[in-house]
Amino acid sequence: MPDTTSDTRPNRPETPLLDRVHNPADLKQFSDAELKRVAQELREETISTVSETGGHLGAGLGVIELTVALHSVFDAPRDKIIWDVSHQCYPHKILTGRRDRIRTLRQKDGLSGFTKRSESPYDPFGAAHSSTSISAALGFAVARDLGGACDTGHGDAIAVIGDGAMSAGMAFEALNNAGHLKKRLIVILNDNEMSIAPPTGALSSYLTRLYAEAPFHDLKAAAKGAVSLLPEPFREGAKRAKEMLKGMAVGGTLFEELGFSYLGPIDGHDLDQLLPVLRTVKARATGPILIHALTRKGKGYSHAEHAADKGHARAKFDVVTGEQKKSPSNAPSYTKVFAEALMQEAAEDSRICAVTAAMPDGTGLDLFAERYPSRCFDVGIAEQHGVTFSAGLAAGGMRPFCAMYSTFLQRGYDQVVHDVAIQRLPVRFAIDRAGLVGADGATHAGSYDVAYLSNLPGFVVMAAADEAELKHMVATAAAHDEGPIAFRYPRGEGEGVEMPVRGVPLQIGVGRVMREGTRVAILSFGTRLGESIKAAEALEARGVSVTVADARFAKPLDRDLVLRLAREHEALITVEEGAVGGFGSHVAQLLAEEGVFDRGLKYRSMVLPDIFIDQASPRDMYAVAQLNAEDIEAKVLSALGVERLDKRA
Amino acid sequence: MPDTTSDTRPNRPETPLLDRVHNPADLKQFSDAELKRVAQELREETISTVSETGGHLGAGLGVIELTVALHSVFDAPRDKIIWDVSHQCYPHKILTGRRDRIRTLRQKDGLSGFTKRSESPYDPFGAAHSSTSISAALGFAVARDLGGACDTGHGDAIAVIGDGAMSAGMAFEALNNAGHLKKRLIVILNDNEMSIAPPTGALSSYLTRLYAEAPFHDLKAAAKGAVSLLPEPFREGAKRAKEMLKGMAVGGTLFEELGFSYLGPIDGHDLDQLLPVLRTVKARATGPILIHALTRKGKGYSHAEHAADKGHARAKFDVVTGEQKKSPSNAPSYTKVFAEALMQEAAEDSRICAVTAAMPDGTGLDLFAERYPSRCFDVGIAEQHGVTFSAGLAAGGMRPFCAMYSTFLQRGYDQVVHDVAIQRLPVRFAIDRAGLVGADGATHAGSYDVAYLSNLPGFVVMAAADEAELKHMVATAAAHDEGPIAFRYPRGEGEGVEMPVRGVPLQIGVGRVMREGTRVAILSFGTRLGESIKAAEALEARGVSVTVADARFAKPLDRDLVLRLAREHEALITVEEGAVGGFGSHVAQLLAEEGVFDRGLKYRSMVLPDIFIDQASPRDMYAVAQLNAEDIEAKVLSALGVERLDKRA
Repeated sequence: MPDTTSDTRPNRPETPLLDRVHNPADLKQFSDAELKRVAQELREETISTVSETGGHLGAGLGVIELTVALHSVFDAPRDKIIWDVSHQCYPHKILTGRRDRIRTLRQKDGLSGFTKRSESPYDPFGAAHSSTSISAALGFAVARDLGGACDTGHGDAIAVIGDGAMSAGMAFEALNNAGHLKKRLIVILNDNEMSIAPPTGALSSYLTRLYAEAPFHDLKAAAKGAVSLLPEPFREGAKRAKEMLKGMAVGGTLFEELGFSYLGPIDGHDLDQLLPVLRTVKARATGPILIHALTRKGKGYSHAEHAADKGHARAKFDVVTGEQKKSPSNAPSYTKVFAEALMQEAAEDSRICAVTAAMPDGTGLDLFAERYPSRCFDVGIAEQHGVTFSAGLAAGGMRPFCAMYSTFLQRGYDQVVHDVAIQRLPVRFAIDRAGLVGADGATHAGSYDVAYLSNLPGFVVMAAADEAELKHMVATAAAHDEGPIAFRYPRGEGEGVEMPVRGVPLQIGVGRVMREGTRVAILSFGTRLGESIKAAEALEARGVSVTVADARFAKPLDRDLVLRLAREHEALITVEEGAVGGFGSHVAQLLAEEGVFDRGLKYRSMVLPDIFIDQASPRDMYAVAQLNAEDIEAKVLSALGVERLDKRA
Repeated sequence: MPDTTSDTRPNRPETPLLDRVHNPADLKQFSDAELKRVAQELREETISTVSETGGHLGAGLGVIELTVALHSVFDAPRDKIIWDVSHQCYPHKILTGRRDRIRTLRQKDGLSGFTKRSESPYDPFGAAHSSTSISAALGFAVARDLGGACDTGHGDAIAVIGDGAMSAGMAFEALNNAGHLKKRLIVILNDNEMSIAPPTGALSSYLTRLYAEAPFHDLKAAAKGAVSLLPEPFREGAKRAKEMLKGMAVGGTLFEELGFSYLGPIDGHDLDQLLPVLRTVKARATGPILIHALTRKGKGYSHAEHAADKGHARAKFDVVTGEQKKSPSNAPSYTKVFAEALMQEAAEDSRICAVTAAMPDGTGLDLFAERYPSRCFDVGIAEQHGVTFSAGLAAGGMRPFCAMYSTFLQRGYDQVVHDVAIQRLPVRFAIDRAGLVGADGATHAGSYDVAYLSNLPGFVVMAAADEAELKHMVATAAAHDEGPIAFRYPRGEGEGVEMPVRGVPLQIGVGRVMREGTRVAILSFGTRLGESIKAAEALEARGVSVTVADARFAKPLDRDLVLRLAREHEALITVEEGAVGGFGSHVAQLLAEEGVFDRGLKYRSMVLPDIFIDQASPRDMYAVAQLNAEDIEAKVLSALGVERLDKRA
């Protein structure tokens, strides 16, 4: 029975069993032996898909068997399967009615690269940031027990969380609370010793010890304990149960101390272990239970297994060779420019050190760590700690650069306020992925940092207009010991500008004029400067004379520049890649306070729109956000009330 | 040798030894026996102080002996003693050169009720929020080992953290990172089974088991291990060492699994245990070590020990009777109004439930928990989890009210964005302590919530102008299932307005006009409405006709109201108790977008100033913030350009 979702093009795998799966209930028809074949087909389908779409590969390959086991044993969507971070969800999407659209992953109007409530009832709780799944699952478990009405009904709440994600305090908070509430709740610790980078922290060593020691544990006791949990059919099938228990041992004291029953470690690629364990848990679990499954990221695809990042994220690639189809880049990425600029500063200043929260590659600090291993700290997925640790470093006389994505810095916001800002400690925040980010979509957009930092007393907030500016801002931050300072820069490649040999500290609170005009002033903050200049050129061609300035600083504002631009022009337009409340709002506050609006000023503030923008190409996302040159041009014309060409200026 | 700092008034205790302590080094002159007397005098001085100033009492009394022991064994400020939360720091302040000002605690221009870097070199890292101390101490330890230059030099880094604070994920993140880095670092777990409320969570049960089981542990092994740690003099003084070890046992597997050496539990009120243990640790510690000390909150003052809250916070009181000198209140507190309104809603809707992060009393949810125990969840000091748990409850069909102080909600900001807003889940945020808070000072001010919530797509953000409004907003939130909704209200008593029998849901995004005038419009958001009306009355008396409106919603804005006020008045002034980026910024964005400024409008936005405001009376803080009626009046007159009385209106 060929399926419309299958494809007979030669480079697509043959998937006769998988073709019969339209939703998870279809898995119930298969024997355990057939489920193994389904898993193999699912693996091939996943590899084939990502080879065409690009995206997260290694994580999905690591949970193929787990995905099949969960969906064949449990009854989604009644049972809530919550994937932590959820970049491992592609196989889950394939099994839950989305195979026909799986090759639209991460594209405009296509499937999200993460779980998403609005996309499917099989995604009970979306994610993209780490370590939220246990909290969410506990919420479902409690709601179930309180009789909450859920559209899809209420069954088991199951969180699947990686060992890296378990290093976040939030996961600990959730375990602590769940252990206390004692509700039936299933947590599957998907332990692949690898989040994006190799995991760090004492917990990770603990987990390693757990399974290193497993063979030496008292298997008899383990067997006794586990068999008492087993439903009758399995107790009778003693041989099978015994087989299963070979991979099991009683351990996990840490989790037991937090009130969880612990089962494991088991081989997360062996359906002969996974299926009976999950069936047992389904039949017998009462309180919170943690199943410790060992998996390998990239499992079953050698080009992923043998890669340093275990195939974490991939551009489109050739399935046979594993070779990625990356377009050649024209300019260095902002991330790399940051890392190299920081290394240059660090070479001359031994006080400079760097902190990342489990993103050494993403922030470029892997390069820094290679050269200055004793001065680089990967604190794990632990932004709260990372920010305050940086504050402690600063108080202790170091010059710490705390490098985080804009969206992840949100996780340490109170620490930014309470430990850094109030104490005026000179922590340098290198804020990567500021603004729209493309295929990762709304959850990864860096929309709020300018707003949530610029109203903190004593903060300096900068945005780089291009990669040369970024280099100067690294130097500015390195030299600034008077208090906290942040600089933001976007995902992706720079503008291709000429790079200075060394960064030179900028004067704090002083912007720069890029071109002088007479009628309209465009004041840009950050990387929309290029589009602002393009807009100015187009306007000039229509006879409207335009000044363009780069604010450089949202805080402290260049008051003289802002007031001069307002005074000398008929209209003033601010442009930024951030939500309302940020740069433009600070400009408006100054203009209001100085009475500039009293006399009339055609003032407009272009910000990110009040929507969460789904994944698309950056250019498409900017079009949705109306922050491209043509949008700036249109905004100017509309402010001027110009319908047709106006030669007045 | 009488000291100028002592006081001979009869109600002040006699403190002959303490009078000789001007800084911690002076403690070195005393024998261990004398240190016990110093501790007793310090206890009496602390009780006497708080009886005069009010403030946090129980926590300080619980660490009297620990404070004396730390300062006699270690060498502050070279050694960094970091008090977590730091409301237990009064005895520390008395010993570190601040006894002469200790009776100005929590008053304007007096000592802060918390540790504060700008106040003393003996406060290496300030705090007021929980669970930051290990991260900060680790920062100092790493900075020391990297050769960072610290004004006070570098010695040991010592974090003193309560068992309640240990429930926060951030503390776990820090332990995890410290266990990995293996730097010499001392963490003292001050285990009093009581943060503000009795602690909750599985960790708390674990700690209880630890010391319950302690006597049955193998003391011989413990002794062996600990004696090997002891410096020579103590090994020789075998009898003393043996005495000390009576209170010790090897345990604390959880901490050992995270890479810490564990010592304890020991009696935190027994200097005969504390002193040798600290001396041993000082002499021998290499990596991270955790000392588990059992203490009693309120220790040594029966009126505190026997109180339900163990004397957590007190108004001025009579030392002999323990009776507090509270001024009679005129109106119910906002907190209580919220709790009662919520109970009223819950009585008719079984979906309503409530979540607090270790603040059942502070949020009023203790009342709710009493009536609806199965629907109230104290998740511990775990705001990240608390927010996402609420999101899970909402996804599971409940109507959760997540009640947090504005300043603490900052700790769950990313969860608000990622788990609540992006998924449009109807979590109700009850935001207490919004705005300035008085004696707790800058760290507790709720300045940023309007800014950091109002730019999130799909959020509804309200502020209550008085306690009746708050009741209506609780009803509004209960009825609102379309997405997240927040309402903020201040610390303290209501305005004394008449209370409705039931809250009635407000129309989303619609404000109300309080009085109509012709020349100036004041648009208030929140509890500055009363001051706005007072200002309007004063202006009216000067011949300026004033409209006053209550916006009720920062999001969605009442566009019609804002635009009408702008159109019909010469000036428009917004007033709010929040930082720039919030309500006024959204109004300005609307006015700009609609071209209102093109024609000229005397627009001003009154917000909290760009400084962290130190503790003072609320009235004094509002004066600093320039948000009292006279400030609003002055702002209006200045906008109008009126120097003298102007009868134009």
